[in-house]
Parts: sequence; C-alpha cells; structure tokens
Amino acid sequence: MNLSLTALARKTRDCAQTLAVLSTEAKNQAIEAIAQALEAAADEILAANAADCAAAAQDGIPKPLYHRLKLDRAKLQSAIAGVRDVGRLADPVGEVQIHRQLDDGLILKRVTCPLGVLGVIFEARPDAAIQISALAIKSGNGVILKGGKEAIRSCEAIVKAIHLGLSQTAISPDAVQLLTTREATLELLQLDQFVDLIIPRGSNSFVRFVQENTRIPVLGHADGICHLYVDRAADLSQAVAITVDSKTQYPAACNAIETLLIHEAIAPAFLTLVAPALQQHNVELRGDARTCEILDNITPATESDWSTEYSDLILSIKVVDSLTDAIAHINEYGSGHTDAIVTENTDAAETFLSQVNAAGVFHNCSTRFADGFRYGFGAEVGISTQKLPPRGPVGLEGLVTYKYKLVGHGHIVATYSGDNAKSFAHKDLD
Amino acid sequence: MNLSLTALARKTRDCAQTLAVLSTEAKNQAIEAIAQALEAAADEILAANAADCAAAAQDGIPKPLYHRLKLDRAKLQSAIAGVRDVGRLADPVGEVQIHRQLDDGLILKRVTCPLGVLGVIFEARPDAAIQISALAIKSGNGVILKGGKEAIRSCEAIVKAIHLGLSQTAISPDAVQLLTTREATLELLQLDQFVDLIIPRGSNSFVRFVQENTRIPVLGHADGICHLYVDRAADLSQAVAITVDSKTQYPAACNAIETLLIHEAIAPAFLTLVAPALQQHNVELRGDARTCEILDNITPATESDWSTEYSDLILSIKVVDSLTDAIAHINEYGSGHTDAIVTENTDAAETFLSQVNAAGVFHNCSTRFADGFRYGFGAEVGISTQKLPPRGPVGLEGLVTYKYKLVGHGHIVATYSGDNAKSFAHKDLD
Repeated sequence: MNLSLTALARKTRDCAQTLAVLSTEAKNQAIEAIAQALEAAADEILAANAADCAAAAQDGIPKPLYHRLKLDRAKLQSAIAGVRDVGRLADPVGEVQIHRQLDDGLILKRVTCPLGVLGVIFEARPDAAIQISALAIKSGNGVILKGGKEAIRSCEAIVKAIHLGLSQTAISPDAVQLLTTREATLELLQLDQFVDLIIPRGSNSFVRFVQENTRIPVLGHADGICHLYVDRAADLSQAVAITVDSKTQYPAACNAIETLLIHEAIAPAFLTLVAPALQQHNVELRGDARTCEILDNITPATESDWSTEYSDLILSIKVVDSLTDAIAHINEYGSGHTDAIVTENTDAAETFLSQVNAAGVFHNCSTRFADGFRYGFGAEVGISTQKLPPRGPVGLEGLVTYKYKLVGHGHIVATYSGDNAKSFAHKDLD
Repeated sequence: MNLSLTALARKTRDCAQTLAVLSTEAKNQAIEAIAQALEAAADEILAANAADCAAAAQDGIPKPLYHRLKLDRAKLQSAIAGVRDVGRLADPVGEVQIHRQLDDGLILKRVTCPLGVLGVIFEARPDAAIQISALAIKSGNGVILKGGKEAIRSCEAIVKAIHLGLSQTAISPDAVQLLTTREATLELLQLDQFVDLIIPRGSNSFVRFVQENTRIPVLGHADGICHLYVDRAADLSQAVAITVDSKTQYPAACNAIETLLIHEAIAPAFLTLVAPALQQHNVELRGDARTCEILDNITPATESDWSTEYSDLILSIKVVDSLTDAIAHINEYGSGHTDAIVTENTDAAETFLSQVNAAGVFHNCSTRFADGFRYGFGAEVGISTQKLPPRGPVGLEGLVTYKYKLVGHGHIVATYSGDNAKSFAHKDLD
C-alpha cells in the first residue's frame, strides 16, 4: 500500500466530513464556482486535450476510444452546462424519511446524509471527471478520480480548474482528488477504510474486474443482456417498432436488446414482418432452429449467443412455446438489467412484470427507456443490476445513505423494560 | 460444491418465484398455518429440544449457549405468538415508491418486491428458525436455514412442523429449507447464483467470518463499539442515568456502550458522580491517564481498550479536550453502530449528530434505544453497521428490494431523440 495514497484518502475523508454539513446554498455556490472556473480554463483544457489526442493518435488507439477522449469546445460547454444542471437538482442530503415520536419527548428521525468518499474510475472520457465532481459536491461527498492514462493531461487541466473554483468557496479543494498513476487503481480498490463507494465507468470486463477486486461496494453493472418477448397476443406492428427501437436506436447502450423471444403461435407472421425491418437497419440475425425454419439465410444461433452482450447490430432470436418459457429463458440468461414484453393481454403482462427478475420490467415500450434521465432523475450516476437497492438507473439518491437521529430528554431504556414497563407511543409525525 | 445443495437452492429459488406474487392474504394464511402447526407439534418440538439439551449438557457446552438452546413451553409459545405478530405486520411487498408519468400513456412505477432467497445461519437458538421463517414468508422470500449443530433435533422438529403447516396452503413447503451438515455453511456462502442475502446470527467472530467468506450481501454487524460523550454543557444527573442505562441495562447487547468520553471541564465533577453509580452495578472501570488522576483505584486503560467490545460489565473512560476530539475519537475507534451525546447545548448536539459517522446518533438518551422494535419497526431482521442502506436496525424492509415497471402503448425512444425530439412530461402521479 502506497502511504501517500492512504494519506490522500484520509485527507479526502476528513474534508468530506466538513462538506457533509454544508447548506444546499453553499454547495450550489461551489458548483457555480466550478462552472465558472472551467469556463475560464477552457482554452487550457482544450489544449491539454489536444495534446492527449495527439499522443493517443500516435499510439493508434481504437477510433471509438478516440472519440470519447476528444473534447471540443461544444462538448466542453455542454459538460459545463451539465454542472449547472446538477446545481439545480434537489439536494439529496437532509431528507427526513422517518419522523416518529417513540414516546413523549423522544423523537426519532431517519435523515439522508452523504456516503463520505466516492472512488470513481473511468476510462478515456475526460468529461466524466467534470460531471462526477459536480454530482459528488451536490451530494456532499468527497471524490477521488482516476482517469484513463490516455486522458491524463485533460484530467489534470480539468481538476486544476475545479480546484481553482473551489478555492473561492466554503469547500476545500481537497474534496476532489485526481490519481494519475497506473498503480493507483488497484490501490484505490483496497482503501475500504476511506472510500465508501466505487463507481467504475468503462467496458464490461473493466467493471467485472473492479467488482472482483474490492470489498468496497460497487455501483455499476458488468452486463446488459436485455430481452424483448413478443407474446402471442402482441400487436405485431407495435412489436416491430419496439423491436427496431430496442435494438437499433443505440446498439452500444447497455439497455439495447440482445435477444428477441417470440411466441410460437405468432412466430411465422411476426418474423416475416420484423426480419426485413431489422435487416434494413443492418442488423445481423442469429436464430434458433425454429427461427431458421421460418427465415431463410440467417445464421443459426449457438448456446453462447444467449449469454452474449453484442453491443452491436446483432440480434439473437428464439421461438418459445409459452410465456412461462420466455420468463424462464430470461431469468436464466438475462443480466437483470431490463426486459420487456409486447402483449395486449394484461394478465400475461402482469405475470411477466412480476416474475421476470430484473431491475426494469417493461410492457409495450422500448427497453431503451431504462435510463436515469428518461426516468426523470435529472442525472444518472450509474445503472445497477444487483438485486439489493439501489437497483436500476441510479440518480443522486445513490450517493447518499441515511442515519437515525434520536433526541430525548434523559430517556433511558430501563423505563420501558421489566415489570412496570412503559409502552412506546410509536406515533408518526407530520 | 455439493450438487444436492445447489439443486436444493435452485428449487428454493424457483419456489420463491411463486411466493413473490402471492397476495398478502395468502401469505398471512400461510403464517397462521405455520403457527397452528407449531402448536400442534409442541410436544414433539420440546422432546427434540430436550434431547438436544441432554446431548449438549453431556458435551459440556458453555452455560449461556445452553440457555439459548433450551426451549421450554413458555419460550415456544412466545415464539409462536411472534409468528402471529409477523402476520399482523404491514406487507413490505408491492409498495409503490415512485409513480410517474414520463409522457402520455407511459407510466413508470418503482414497486417493492422480494429479494428471492435468504440464507440464514444461526448458532444454538432454535427459536430463531421460527421467527425468521415467518419473516421470510411475510416478505415473499424463500429461506434456507442453517442452525447450529447443537440444535439439530430441535430445528428438524420445527421445520417439519412448518412444512406440515405450509402443505395446507398456497405456499410450497420447499420455500423453507433446513441444512443440517457442518459443511453446508461454507457451501451456502458460495451460492451467490441462488441466494440473495445472508443473515448471520451469532458471535462477532462468526459474523466476521461470514462477511469475509461470501460474495453474497450480508445483513449484520461484527462489532458494536458504542460511545457516550458527556459534553461540558451536560446535565450531570441526566448524564449519570444515561451512562448507567447505556452500560448496564443489558451489557451483552451490541448497543451497550464500551467507552465513555468526558469533556475535561466537567470531568472531575462528573466522574465523582458516575463512578460510584457504575460501581454499584459492578462495572469495572478502565481509565485513561486523566481519568486515573481523578479516580483512585481504577485500572488504567490501554490502547486496545478503545477498540474492544467487552459485551460485559467493563467500561473504558477517556477525558477529552473538546467536542471535536470526542467526535474524532468516535470516528476513529467506533464501529458505526450507535453513539450518543449528553448536552444542553443544541449547537454541540447538532454538530455531534451531523459529524459522527454512525448508523445511530443520539442526543440525551440511552444508546440502548437502537433497536428495531423500539424504533417501531415491529420486527428486527438485523442491525447493519455498513454505510450503504439498509443501515442501523433493519425491519422487514431489509428483506425486499424494488423493480421499475414501465408500461407504455408502443412508446419508442426514437420519438424523444434527434432533431424533433419530444420532451418528457415527468409528472409525479397520486
């Protein structure tokens, strides 16, 4: 363990303790100060990014990675606008979830409070550093950022501006830290004494690596294997539109579908409609035996197709005998992200929504709606496919926890025990 | 991995899927059927327990363990009454937490749902099997029980009765499983594909062992190192009563205090009052240097005292220079369970409640109030000292999660993207 990283993490934790008790107004002022400092440093940030991009191009990094790394003036302005959007979000800290009189003068409150310190590990995208810093400040948390090595100059310029902005405010610049060495990622994952939540942003394999190498809770998901089931009672033209949207609207997204399940009763009719619609969008179709009987010239699917997230214009298709079989397939091969049914039969829909074990269960709409912004959270911190809350798209509420505050006037438990025990009132207030 | 345990866990999971969609009425009927079956099998259960106790006595198990193992008719009746109490609790499943119109005809609901399968590992207490089975059914979860080997006959008799009770209901007896072999505990901890939450009930070292040997989320806490800080502005007689209650009302409880922190300005006056009051309850006092200067004949505390949970009539005492020092000591040595301040100064109280990092932060009352029943939850599934929710005493809500249900009428995301993107309404309903 690198002693200096431990010392840095401890400083961030101590600083976060002060940040935790700041007013909404003080936090919003700091967020505005960050926005202004980023605007003032725009030229410097863009120059640093240009240097990162030049180095990356020389190293021949893949084109999609290069696009994520590249920061032009419009993208930077949009990221700064995003900072001000975070300023306008409701403060997630200080929400009273339980307010209960246990007895005369003994009042219990459950109140939301910051987690403490966030560890955010992202790959090439430097604008992620901007967004997550604003979210951390708004939720009263310190944050330790670790960006990809391709983005190191950009991240340094961004964090320098954030520090300059914070130096004008009630918040210590130490609340936002940047790690730059390659070794730092593994060390960060070991700091469970100081870091309360890890947010990994990157490829599935990267997220899985993080999940398997830390005892700190991780907010994120490795896989997004989403399904669309077209029931025997589906409106077929609606089902075609939903299939095309769920697959092609943004195929690299985690909420795009990978597998289409079709009830055997409508399989010939539906496949005849949906296949050309998908092929028009250049989707490669891989079908099970029954699908291949109906459609000519498509690739047969193999067992591994059912558990593959293509993140690309490829779709596996399976004909099932029943709703029950569709649900069983999804619960076996799905990743618990988002699965949808198209049907006019409300009983079938209700069964699907109840029995499919996923963060999102949708009826007659595209899986692509599974998103914090579309849900109206104002921001999306991540999408979780674990079963315990927070589950699904997570907004600012994923960056806070709660504590129980109990205020009495000398109350002791002996009063409520033994032979002459007094009863509790347990009366909810407000 | 024992194949039969995997098969059993899979069966429990499949069975839980059916249980998840049952009505509150059907679950309550099953709970009443369990209560009646346990009443009918009382003689058999007590005979099995007598055999367990005889064997345990012959093996010379420690007295406290023997007392937890021993089930007399009154204790069994009280456990059965507890089952009926669970029947009367509000159903934690189906609660609508978010109800939002995203656009015309596109309705989002966040609804609570069962976790799936609980793994409950407990030591000698056979009545734990009764309580946790009722809680599992009420929350719509399957449960795999693993009792201590001393309680094997008792647990078998109890689960036999529960199965008999369930066989008369809509719930398959497979929803409640009992493991009896010693190897089963470790195997259970590996079943992250089928088990969604582990609840360990036992010693601190046992809970720590479970936490360190599973990837399944664990509900529980290893340590309960709770503090009471007596501020310079404390009402001293109130502080004495709270100290005595927090330490002696039930010293083995996790919410009893282990360390008393005292502001130096009132240390001589307060120690002179509180020491005899504690010693009257046979509490052994261990003081830091300044405490030892004020009190004669007490044991000096060593560094290890500050991080020891005595679970016994022992109390470490430290004189601090300030509120800040008290908070720093607690955040360094505490276990995040429950810490209290006694003061008439509301600013000091507010600072303490905000800055102490614990599940429970109390003002002018005993730490012993940190308990699900006293908080009015009706039941306590466990107490969590982790930072992420659920934190602190956890009632039935700790056994459920939520899913997002989105219902549309053919809605696709393409409508809300691109040049002519439609805006979302994001209107909360009800």
